[in-house]
Amino acid sequence: MLEQHLEYDLIVIGSGPAGQKAALAAAKQRRRVALIERQQIVGGFCLHTGTIPSKTLREAVLYFTGHRLHSLYGASYRLKERITLQDLTFRVQHVIRCELDAIASQLRRNNIDLYYGTARFASPHIVEVEELYTATRLYGNAFVIAVGSQPARPVHIPFTPGRIIDSDGILELPEIPRSMVVVGAGIIGCEYSSIFATLGVEVTLIDQRTTLLDFVDREIIDALVYHMRADNVTLRLGEAVDKVFIDEQDRIITELESGKRIIAETLLFAVGRQGATDALHLEAAGLDTDDRGRVSVNEVYQTDVAHIYAAGDVIGFPALAATSMEQGRLAACHALGVPAETYSALAPYGIWTIPEISMVGDTEEQLTQAYVPYEVGLARYRETAKGLILGDDIGMLKLLFHRDSHQLLGVHAIGERAAEIIHIGQAVMACASPIEYFINTVFNYPTLAEAYKIAAFDGLNKLSA
Amino acid sequence: MLEQHLEYDLIVIGSGPAGQKAALAAAKQRRRVALIERQQIVGGFCLHTGTIPSKTLREAVLYFTGHRLHSLYGASYRLKERITLQDLTFRVQHVIRCELDAIASQLRRNNIDLYYGTARFASPHIVEVEELYTATRLYGNAFVIAVGSQPARPVHIPFTPGRIIDSDGILELPEIPRSMVVVGAGIIGCEYSSIFATLGVEVTLIDQRTTLLDFVDREIIDALVYHMRADNVTLRLGEAVDKVFIDEQDRIITELESGKRIIAETLLFAVGRQGATDALHLEAAGLDTDDRGRVSVNEVYQTDVAHIYAAGDVIGFPALAATSMEQGRLAACHALGVPAETYSALAPYGIWTIPEISMVGDTEEQLTQAYVPYEVGLARYRETAKGLILGDDIGMLKLLFHRDSHQLLGVHAIGERAAEIIHIGQAVMACASPIEYFINTVFNYPTLAEAYKIAAFDGLNKLSA
Repeated sequence: MLEQHLEYDLIVIGSGPAGQKAALAAAKQRRRVALIERQQIVGGFCLHTGTIPSKTLREAVLYFTGHRLHSLYGASYRLKERITLQDLTFRVQHVIRCELDAIASQLRRNNIDLYYGTARFASPHIVEVEELYTATRLYGNAFVIAVGSQPARPVHIPFTPGRIIDSDGILELPEIPRSMVVVGAGIIGCEYSSIFATLGVEVTLIDQRTTLLDFVDREIIDALVYHMRADNVTLRLGEAVDKVFIDEQDRIITELESGKRIIAETLLFAVGRQGATDALHLEAAGLDTDDRGRVSVNEVYQTDVAHIYAAGDVIGFPALAATSMEQGRLAACHALGVPAETYSALAPYGIWTIPEISMVGDTEEQLTQAYVPYEVGLARYRETAKGLILGDDIGMLKLLFHRDSHQLLGVHAIGERAAEIIHIGQAVMACASPIEYFINTVFNYPTLAEAYKIAAFDGLNKLSA
Repeated sequence: MLEQHLEYDLIVIGSGPAGQKAALAAAKQRRRVALIERQQIVGGFCLHTGTIPSKTLREAVLYFTGHRLHSLYGASYRLKERITLQDLTFRVQHVIRCELDAIASQLRRNNIDLYYGTARFASPHIVEVEELYTATRLYGNAFVIAVGSQPARPVHIPFTPGRIIDSDGILELPEIPRSMVVVGAGIIGCEYSSIFATLGVEVTLIDQRTTLLDFVDREIIDALVYHMRADNVTLRLGEAVDKVFIDEQDRIITELESGKRIIAETLLFAVGRQGATDALHLEAAGLDTDDRGRVSVNEVYQTDVAHIYAAGDVIGFPALAATSMEQGRLAACHALGVPAETYSALAPYGIWTIPEISMVGDTEEQLTQAYVPYEVGLARYRETAKGLILGDDIGMLKLLFHRDSHQLLGVHAIGERAAEIIHIGQAVMACASPIEYFINTVFNYPTLAEAYKIAAFDGLNKLSA
């Protein structure tokens, strides 16, 4: 006899950005939707230990250190002499609480059934949700796996709370350390290196690869590297960690294969994250993962089992909240046979280093490799009045456009509000306008958006020079 | 015998935003251009006492008062206990110096002949530039008058340096006053009221009109009024000033026609500005001005004398730097017979009150009057994670779109970075995309730009509700 179970049009596993948007997209179609969350609280890694806390911390750090005013008042200028971790995390808790309320009420308003517990596939169409004393069986016509990722914790790293941590442990640091080793120069490693360096922490950033963030335009990364060094980050690229231990003087010693030895108060291990699929019992659904726990999908986010989709960090790169949301929405729509348009080929990237980086479209490297004849239009923020007013004299905006059609092919920005103003270029790319658009458009004065006009003039001038 | 003179394709009078862009547009066509500036220094009112100083002051005030963090830390939170005028103006001087260098070097690079002195028409094609001991005669095939405006100084107001001032006198205030009367609730009056109120000054804003800034969407203005009052601004609308005087206790007394009496330390008179055309001797060119010294032009910025154009504040509304620049460029292009495209019908407005306001396209009032069936999509900043992170819980973004075509008709924003993110909507309007664009687009997370997506969902939901 078949056990009793509840039936749903769509079951979403995980309530982070991808899961939320998948569930909401289905609910808006008035389908019956279940959302399963392993924690006692919705939001996922993004809300509780990931994107939201790190971005809030970053904003608080920029504020309290007066970093934005250094170009005006000198580098020794500091708004608050003694910054405590409480100054910084107070704000984080507030933001998390508000976001949590908003998410929970949105899910409730849309009649999404929430289950708190660990999801486990019993068969391709049935999951069991295990709570403390009970287990509920749910039948789904379709699934979206959006369980996210978790930090890798290799055995040779002696993780120690408050001392040798992964990115989930940042908010539990007892105080701001004087020195920090960051292992892994991916997005997370770079972002936290920036944040702690801005606080005055002596940061050493280590990665086996010889370059940073390869998907980003080189000129932008070169600028990032320059500014990280200016903020006292020591970069150890092309170097492998041999051993990490706490010595008898209670110092953290990191030994590199090259023989170098780095002494620090804290170590942040940020090498790779793994799909959080352990408990899912995917084999019961006929699915497999790669060696990092990730699920592979096709271009509509469908796994090898046709009615099971996956979205967000669990499918790997780029693992950004913004793209994860769109993946979740598209996965749900496809699963339910609902037509969905997307401009996701024009998805922007936002990297919250200091300075902030954002991009949309192709890089110079991609265009060169594809033999596309392009030209570059560049504007420095300091050429705009707003850049001067904000004290950002290092920001820049770079437009890549086709030399013949003048069509915009890529926008790359580093500096204040880069992740906001990139959307102007994204809209222009979406409607395939030539970069003359920026010449013929009135921009508010003073704004950073004016950099588009300056860059367009710069680029077009090069064509006739 | 004809006196000797230098000949130019275009002579531009005034080196503010309109004059600069007119001169540069002509120079880019490799025409011979003269630029005449009455002050000893280029930049105009905008750079020296207008837009740039007020926007820099505003940013410094927001920073030092910690205004942006009040929602997180409470209204009594103040980053710097005792803010001096020096804290604020230090930054202003720095920004002016940088901008000045940039403008001067740009004019030089483009081979624009600069004349410092007072321009005076001798005939429709000849101006004399009077310097201290010399006068130079210049012959112009075409002219752009971009002399800007100056504060009106009616005789019944007893202007007194440092006490009863116009907006040119702000930077010369001896210290931050405890109380201030602002007469005139136009853009300038509203902006300074916001700035000083944020500093903790008791501001009373007086205007004869019963509403503020009539060209802005009512809902946005209602929000501005609410927040100005929350910052302790007393609004006296529909009230006329009868008399202003300094009493025997050295207090400034403002008496209203209604019998009210306001006592304050300082009075800022910001009623109307006049075209700075007095010295131009326009009648020699066959031109006239209205009773406020302004020159009237047609849709291509041409005056009644075909080869003489005018642009910027001297032609009146909206008198914003951004639109003035575009007017200057278009005037020069038309004068020289150079084709110039423009999206100036989609020119945005930026108003630097606290909170900041920006808009593009039509208001609800305009659409209602024109019988256009529209719907509204609204997003609160606090619905975005970035709004929470920045501590802006009052901002909002409003999309107006056609109920049938879904085409975007207007974008209205109040709150942090409003003047930046408005350009996203502007680009979408320029390519006539429906508001589904925002649904199908990936936005960086967390950004304020996400408000577009939230607002679009809100609006489309209303159609099917």
